[in-house]
Amino acid sequence: MAGSMQASALLITKLIDHAAREHTAQEIVTYWADSSITRTSWGEVGKDARKFAQAMQRLGMKKGDRIATMAMNHAHHLISWYGAAGMGGILHTVNPRLFEEQLVYIMNHAEDRVLMFDKAFAPIVESLKPQLKTIEHYIQFDGEKGEYPTFKELIDAEDGDFDWVEMEENDSCGLCYTSGTTGNPKGVLYENRSNVLHALSAIQPDVMNLTSRSVMLPVVPMFHANAWGVPFACAAVGAKLVFSASNEPSILWKMIREEGVTHSAGVPTVWLGLFADMDQNGGDYGKMQVAIIGGSACPRSMIVRMMENDIHVAHAWGMTETSPIGTAGSRPTNWDDLDFDERVDSISKQGRPPFGVEMRVVDENGNVLPRDGVSSGTLEVRGPWIIKRYYRADEDAVGDDLWFDTGDVAVMHPDGVMQITDRAKDVIKSGGEWISSIELENAAVGCPGVAEAAAVGVFHPKWEERPLLLIVKKPGADVTGEEIIAFLSDKVAKWWLPDEIKFVDELPHTGTGKVLKRAIRDEYKDYKLGSLSEA
Amino acid sequence: MAGSMQASALLITKLIDHAAREHTAQEIVTYWADSSITRTSWGEVGKDARKFAQAMQRLGMKKGDRIATMAMNHAHHLISWYGAAGMGGILHTVNPRLFEEQLVYIMNHAEDRVLMFDKAFAPIVESLKPQLKTIEHYIQFDGEKGEYPTFKELIDAEDGDFDWVEMEENDSCGLCYTSGTTGNPKGVLYENRSNVLHALSAIQPDVMNLTSRSVMLPVVPMFHANAWGVPFACAAVGAKLVFSASNEPSILWKMIREEGVTHSAGVPTVWLGLFADMDQNGGDYGKMQVAIIGGSACPRSMIVRMMENDIHVAHAWGMTETSPIGTAGSRPTNWDDLDFDERVDSISKQGRPPFGVEMRVVDENGNVLPRDGVSSGTLEVRGPWIIKRYYRADEDAVGDDLWFDTGDVAVMHPDGVMQITDRAKDVIKSGGEWISSIELENAAVGCPGVAEAAAVGVFHPKWEERPLLLIVKKPGADVTGEEIIAFLSDKVAKWWLPDEIKFVDELPHTGTGKVLKRAIRDEYKDYKLGSLSEA
Repeated sequence: MAGSMQASALLITKLIDHAAREHTAQEIVTYWADSSITRTSWGEVGKDARKFAQAMQRLGMKKGDRIATMAMNHAHHLISWYGAAGMGGILHTVNPRLFEEQLVYIMNHAEDRVLMFDKAFAPIVESLKPQLKTIEHYIQFDGEKGEYPTFKELIDAEDGDFDWVEMEENDSCGLCYTSGTTGNPKGVLYENRSNVLHALSAIQPDVMNLTSRSVMLPVVPMFHANAWGVPFACAAVGAKLVFSASNEPSILWKMIREEGVTHSAGVPTVWLGLFADMDQNGGDYGKMQVAIIGGSACPRSMIVRMMENDIHVAHAWGMTETSPIGTAGSRPTNWDDLDFDERVDSISKQGRPPFGVEMRVVDENGNVLPRDGVSSGTLEVRGPWIIKRYYRADEDAVGDDLWFDTGDVAVMHPDGVMQITDRAKDVIKSGGEWISSIELENAAVGCPGVAEAAAVGVFHPKWEERPLLLIVKKPGADVTGEEIIAFLSDKVAKWWLPDEIKFVDELPHTGTGKVLKRAIRDEYKDYKLGSLSEA
Repeated sequence: MAGSMQASALLITKLIDHAAREHTAQEIVTYWADSSITRTSWGEVGKDARKFAQAMQRLGMKKGDRIATMAMNHAHHLISWYGAAGMGGILHTVNPRLFEEQLVYIMNHAEDRVLMFDKAFAPIVESLKPQLKTIEHYIQFDGEKGEYPTFKELIDAEDGDFDWVEMEENDSCGLCYTSGTTGNPKGVLYENRSNVLHALSAIQPDVMNLTSRSVMLPVVPMFHANAWGVPFACAAVGAKLVFSASNEPSILWKMIREEGVTHSAGVPTVWLGLFADMDQNGGDYGKMQVAIIGGSACPRSMIVRMMENDIHVAHAWGMTETSPIGTAGSRPTNWDDLDFDERVDSISKQGRPPFGVEMRVVDENGNVLPRDGVSSGTLEVRGPWIIKRYYRADEDAVGDDLWFDTGDVAVMHPDGVMQITDRAKDVIKSGGEWISSIELENAAVGCPGVAEAAAVGVFHPKWEERPLLLIVKKPGADVTGEEIIAFLSDKVAKWWLPDEIKFVDELPHTGTGKVLKRAIRDEYKDYKLGSLSEA
C-alpha cells in the first residue's frame, strides 16, 4: 500500500534549496580572522554551494569522495558543507587542535582527497603535508592568495549552473572523528537522512527553539559534531547565522550586540570567558534569548546568571556519535509552577529526549535500571541520528537492539528527565561507591573567587580513590581551600568532600574547550594526597 | 556507504511509545457528549492502544485492513488511532456530516471491516447499515451499552501485552476521504512516514509551536485531515490534549478556561461562535496563546481581535491531500519592526511553507509565475506529506515532477509569503479579470453588524460574471446594503464592489463549518442581479 504519499528523500540539498528559495535575503554574517566582517545570504550561499560542487567535480571529486576542512566558523566553511553534500561528497571536518599524529592518522584513514584550510592553520598544514598520503588538492579558505589556490578563485571560476547529484537519503554526507581516550580516533559518518531528521528535531521549541526571526551565533566549532547541527537547523527555518572565526570574548560580545544575536551554542568554558569579559568591561546581553550549552555539564552558577538575565539555558547533552543532540534540557511540564530555585534545579539536569531519541540507564550487567532518580548507571541511546558503525570499522558499534553505550553515567528521574552524573571514566570510586566529579566541579565553580575546577580520583590506600580538587582562582581573588570546603559542605554529601584542594594556574583543555580530565588524571595518578591544611 | 547511522523507521507507534514513556503522566482530558469529563494520560493511552490492537486482531483484523470511525474528538477515538496503526491497520476517519449516499460510497469503497461510532451517530449507522457491504463489526465508542459492544468492553477484555506489528515507514496507517465538488469522494491514504514527518514539522515554532507545556484543544474534528495532525504532533512533544465532543461555544470556553488551554486549532466559523458567546456572556481567553486557524481564510477582523488579546494566529493553509499543513502563517523575519497594522497585514496572508513543502504558482499553461506579489495563478505543492495517488485510483494525482494542483488560486510575494486569493472554482470572472470572493467576504465580515458573508459570481450579460454578496446580520443588527458598500469601498477595488447585496437568514455550511459555496452558486446561478437599491 506504499506510494500513496510522495516519496521525497530527506537530503541536505533540500535544506539549502529551501533556505535559498524561501529565505533568500536572510543574512549570513562572518567575522573573519583578519577582523573584517562580510555579509552574504541564504540565497547567495545556495548559489555558491552549487559553484563549489562544480569546482569539486572539476577537480575530479566523485560521489562518496572525502573533502576535508580544517577551519573555524565562517561563510566559506558553510558553503563547502552544502556544496560537498550537493555533489555527493563527504565533508570531513578536521579539528585543527588535535595532536599532529592524530591529524595525520585521521586524514589518512579518511583518505581525504581535498583539504580546505584557514590561512591561520597553514603552518599546521605545512607541517603535516609530508605525511598526508591521499590529499591531492590544498585550498585556502580565507585571506590573501599565497602558495595555494583560494576558495574564492575556486568558485569564481564556476557559473553555478549545476543540478545536485542524485542521491538516496541514506547516502553519507559528513564525517567527524572523535578523539577517544584510548586507541585511535574513530570516524562518525553522518547521512543525509540523519542530519535532516536531527535538524527537524533541533528547531522545535523544546530543543533550540529556532525560527526565521532567530539570529544564531554558533560558538561551537563546525569541526565539533557539525557545530551541533546548527548550520542545518538554521537552514530549515531560515534563521540568520552569525559566524566568528575568533572566539575572543570581546569579539563575541561585539557580534552578539551588533548583530542582534538571539541564540548561541557553546561549551560552558565559552560562557565563563564571556562572563569574565563582561565583569571587567561591562556591557549587556544584547537580544540573547537562548544559550544552548553542552559539551560538558553547565555549572549551576552559570544557569543562575543566565536565568537572572532572562536567557533560557538549553542544557544539552550529546556526543559526536549522536549527531549530537540527545537532550536539550527542555523545561518540564510543571515549569510555570516552579519557583526560581526549582527552575535552576530543573535546568541543571539534562532533560528529556526529543522524539527520535530513546534513552535508558543500565547497570554493569546490562540490566535496565528504574527511572527512580537514584539508580545510577551507563547511559545508552538509540534512534535515527545515533551511530550504528564507525567509519571503516569491521563491526557495528551497537548490538542487534541498536542500543549505543555512551560512556556517560546518568540517572533517570521518574518524570523522564535524564541527569548526567559523570563520564564513566571520570567517576571517582571511593570505597565501592561513586562520587560524581562533575557535581563536585560544578558546585566548586559556584564558590566566589573560583574560576575553574577539576576533580579527579587519586589513589588512596583505604578507599581505593579519593577526590583531589584542582582550582583556578579568578584574577585577583584570594579564596582559600577552607573556604571552598565550607562552601561545598552543604552542597554535596560529606564523604564526597575532596581530600585535598590544590590551586593551579591553569587547567589543560581539549580543542573544544572542555577540561582535559585524562591529562590531569595522568599527571596526578601517583599523587600523594595531603590533608587540606597541608595543601 | 549507507548504514553508518541507525536505520530507525518513522512510525506512528514510535510517537505513542515516546509519549507514553517520556510524558507518562501528561493528561488527556475529554468532555463527552453526555457532559461528563474524564481524564487519562499518555501513559494510559499507550497501554489502551495496545489493548485496542489486541482486540482488533481478536476480531480478525490483519495488516492493511481498514477500521472506520464515525466519531467526535475524544480519548477513545485517539486510542483507536494509535491502536489501529499499531496492528498495521488503516484507521479510516469517516465524516458523519456527509450526505448518506456519500457515507455509503466511502465505506464501501474503503471496504471497511469495523465501524467504531459515537452513540450520537447510532441513528445514522442504523440507517446506513443495510447498504454497508463490508462492515463485520459495529462497536460503540461512548455511552451506555446498547445493542452493540462498547469500546470499553472491547479493550477491557485484553491485557495490553502486545508487541506492535512490524512495519515499514511507508506502510499506510490512515485514510480520509475528501468530499469533492464533482464526482465521488476520493480517499487520501496517509503513511506512517508522512504522518511522522508532518508532526515533526508541525511542532516547530513557526508552525504550531508545541512543547510539553502546551495544552491543546483541537476543535477541528479528528475526521477532518487527522485533526490537522494535532494528535500526532502532541504525542511528539508530550503536550496535554483537551478534547470536546461538543462544539457548543459555552462548552469550549469552559474547557479552555478550566483546563488552561494554550493552543487551539479550528476553522474561522468556530471562532465566530466563540466571539459571539464571549460578547454575550463575558469571560476571558484563559491562557490561550496560539490559535491555529485554517480550513478557510481567516478574516482580518478576527486576526485583529486575536492579536489585541496577545493570541498569535497561525493562519494555516492546507487540505486533506497535504496532511494538511502547507503553511501556517509564520511571522516574517522583520516582525519586530512592524507596527500593529502591518502585523495584521502579514498574518492575513498564509505565510511561508515550512521545510518539506515546496510551493509554486502557475498560469493556465503551466508556466511558473514570478514571486512578485501580483501574479495570480494555481497553487501547486509537493513534498513528503503531499499526496501522490488517491486510494485505489488507477493513476497518480501528480505528474512525474510530483507537483500537486491544489485547486487554490494564490499569489507568491517576493519574500516567499504565499497568499491564497481564492478557490479556483470560487473566483468571480468579471470582464476577463478575476475578483477574489474570499477577499470580498473577509472585508465584509469586518463591517459592524455583519455576522457572515458569501460572495458568488452571478451571470452578467456584459461582464460574464458579477459579484452577488449574501449577508447574514448579527442578531439585532440593522446594517444596510448601502452601509456595507460604503464600508467596502476603501478596502477593495471599485470594480470589485458587489452588484447586489442580499440579506439572508443563514448560509449553508459543510460538515467542517466552511460556507458551502457550491450550494450557493447552484441556488443563485440563474439569479437576476438587481441594483443595490432594489435589493
